[in-house]
Amino acid sequence: MLGRINHIAIAVSDLEPAVKTYRDVLGAEVSVPLQLPDHGVTVVFVELANTKVELLEPLGEASPIRAFLEKTPAGGMHHICYEVDDILAVRDRLRATGARVLGDGEPKIGAHGKPVLFLHPKDFCGTLIELEQV
Amino acid sequence: MLGRINHIAIAVSDLEPAVKTYRDVLGAEVSVPLQLPDHGVTVVFVELANTKVELLEPLGEASPIRAFLEKTPAGGMHHICYEVDDILAVRDRLRATGARVLGDGEPKIGAHGKPVLFLHPKDFCGTLIELEQV
Repeated sequence: MLGRINHIAIAVSDLEPAVKTYRDVLGAEVSVPLQLPDHGVTVVFVELANTKVELLEPLGEASPIRAFLEKTPAGGMHHICYEVDDILAVRDRLRATGARVLGDGEPKIGAHGKPVLFLHPKDFCGTLIELEQV
Repeated sequence: MLGRINHIAIAVSDLEPAVKTYRDVLGAEVSVPLQLPDHGVTVVFVELANTKVELLEPLGEASPIRAFLEKTPAGGMHHICYEVDDILAVRDRLRATGARVLGDGEPKIGAHGKPVLFLHPKDFCGTLIELEQV
């Protein structure tokens, strides 16, 4: 059911020092910032050999990561994104086990222009899971 | 400097329901539990196409993940492990930038029988980073 890990997301209050940490201290390749107003975040991707780290900064007052950053102002790991083949089939199989899908359960278009859904952390070991159809 | 992401670790209070979630609900392949007394954890690995998720349960009273689980009893993302070629060279380059290495800075032997070190979350966007020499 789960494919590759597409990315691990880290929420930060300020993207600029986070980019410096990954690019200048850790020596990684970091993409240019991309604003995603529909998701309330500005993102960059840290490119690694087998997957990516996504650094997220709040965009707009209603950003969904503001509450997380109020609790953890230094930033922290926010979610894991798994690739799936058929997001609606996976959603329905997960719901049949009692697992909760966030929002109205209809996929939105994510950072890579593909359908995404989020699963409730309480049903997955305290981890917010994003599913992305590839 | 950073190679592949070797694993993303999730700390849980109880491994058994966590294994069921990943194996039975999410349909992933999960290894048998491995006790690591030197690290104070019992681990299983969730095998994915490009990397692994490591589920950690406290082992022993002095387990280093107990404090984390007292704050987040439902569990949560605990650290990211990056592979490096030469752990001592990377340690020294990171220290030269002012970044803090945890403990006495000497690598221990990790879950894969290879040298590991941990970096201070405050210097890395609130994320605990493990380095593993491969």
